[in-house]
Amino acid sequence: MLQLYIGNKNYSSWSMRPWVLLRQVGIPFEEVPVRFDSFDANSQFKRQLKDVSPTAKVPVLVDGDLTVWDTLAIAEYLAEKFPDRQLWPQDAATRAHARSVVAEMHSGFGQLRSHCPMNIEARLPHIGALIWRDQPGVRADVERLGQMWSELLARHRGQMLYGEFSIADAFFAPVCMRLVTYALPVPAVVAAYVQRVQALPGVAAWIEAALAEQDFRDFEEPYRLARD
Amino acid sequence: MLQLYIGNKNYSSWSMRPWVLLRQVGIPFEEVPVRFDSFDANSQFKRQLKDVSPTAKVPVLVDGDLTVWDTLAIAEYLAEKFPDRQLWPQDAATRAHARSVVAEMHSGFGQLRSHCPMNIEARLPHIGALIWRDQPGVRADVERLGQMWSELLARHRGQMLYGEFSIADAFFAPVCMRLVTYALPVPAVVAAYVQRVQALPGVAAWIEAALAEQDFRDFEEPYRLARD
Ligand SMILES: N[C@@H](CCC(=O)N[C@@H](CS)C(=O)NCC(=O)O)C(=O)O
Ligand SMILES: N[C@@H](CCC(=O)N[C@@H](CS)C(=O)NCC(=O)O)C(=O)O
Repeated sequence: MLQLYIGNKNYSSWSMRPWVLLRQVGIPFEEVPVRFDSFDANSQFKRQLKDVSPTAKVPVLVDGDLTVWDTLAIAEYLAEKFPDRQLWPQDAATRAHARSVVAEMHSGFGQLRSHCPMNIEARLPHIGALIWRDQPGVRADVERLGQMWSELLARHRGQMLYGEFSIADAFFAPVCMRLVTYALPVPAVVAAYVQRVQALPGVAAWIEAALAEQDFRDFEEPYRLARD
Repeated sequence: MLQLYIGNKNYSSWSMRPWVLLRQVGIPFEEVPVRFDSFDANSQFKRQLKDVSPTAKVPVLVDGDLTVWDTLAIAEYLAEKFPDRQLWPQDAATRAHARSVVAEMHSGFGQLRSHCPMNIEARLPHIGALIWRDQPGVRADVERLGQMWSELLARHRGQMLYGEFSIADAFFAPVCMRLVTYALPVPAVVAAYVQRVQALPGVAAWIEAALAEQDFRDFEEPYRLARD
């Protein structure tokens, strides 16, 4: 049985991606939650992960003797291992396009990621408005998302970015959560896509579990002193 | 014919990866150099790239109608298109491992990347010594590299990280250049690997062209006022 080590569902955007991917397409796996206490070398979190993965970060996929420790490598591994699930688009050119947007996400959108950390249960529209006013880098990131998604949704005329659900949607699911938490302004087609992503059974299951968690971690909460 | 858009060979670490990959395994391609002037919206660089790729960054691979615009997506595309070149290790588990280290590079090693920008022709051991003394994040990045490479070189008993040359070595080639420029301290096995990478024909060809360039770009030169 595949094992997936993940962090807090409310906060861990990287963990969300492979979890949603597996769940949404119905690949069975055992979830191993590793709660965030801190990321110090002697934290419970780091001690639990250090024998599992060389980076001691989540997510980590364990398949028997094999450990795969980065989100994108996990996605590629699953796509190879379960070809019938069609995790990537089937056409080679479309797949290359999907890999470009996913790799762009994997190493990019740094301004959105640092100013708007994922926090599924929080609603911070006022903070979002300040960030929007003051952070041109965040505006540029969100503008790029809007352009990318609008173009893909128009081109593939589907519910998801490449028509059917794929790794690309799993990769952008945490971004959708940020847009909601910080109420960042997006075009109507993008807002509608964000709604559809939240309604995917795999995403809805993650959100439900995130809301049930009720942990509060200062180092993931630059904008709050406590839960509302 | 494949076209690869690249930046300055002396400075553009991302461009180096797919160029070295293609050259080292002998896949023919046409190089389209886009010289760095600045990264402002109205720079020559951005204007030349904006109709080629949505991010207007290098590298970009163009194959007929298809555009692939991120290094990792380019690598995956080439691995699929040229299966006989064995760009990834052939064994599925080893391939998953290689994808993990490559994805870790793609989104990580931020401290090394920001404090020690690639600058092939420069020799900055004194700067490297100051960085080494003052930047624990750089030390942690280099320590992680040393651990990763030592383990892989011991495990696969080869010249390259997975025995034969693969995408992994192409991804770490710019890192090797940084270790040399800043003379950062590494274990002997790692230093020997860095030497072997520099001697690969694909890497040597890139270095030779980088040395011939003679451009000096202030925004890539945090430590110098001019070439020495
Ligand atoms: N590039 C990695 C990033 C993983 C990552 O940064 N995970 C965070 C949690 S969302 C983590 O484990 N942080 C702990 C730390 O930074 O020490 C991936 O794609 O898996
Ligand atoms: N994640 C991208 C990064 C590409 C990148 O940042 N390239 C730099 C040159 S090495 C660039 O084009 N910078 C221009 C800019 O940031 O506007 C990739 O892997 O291809």
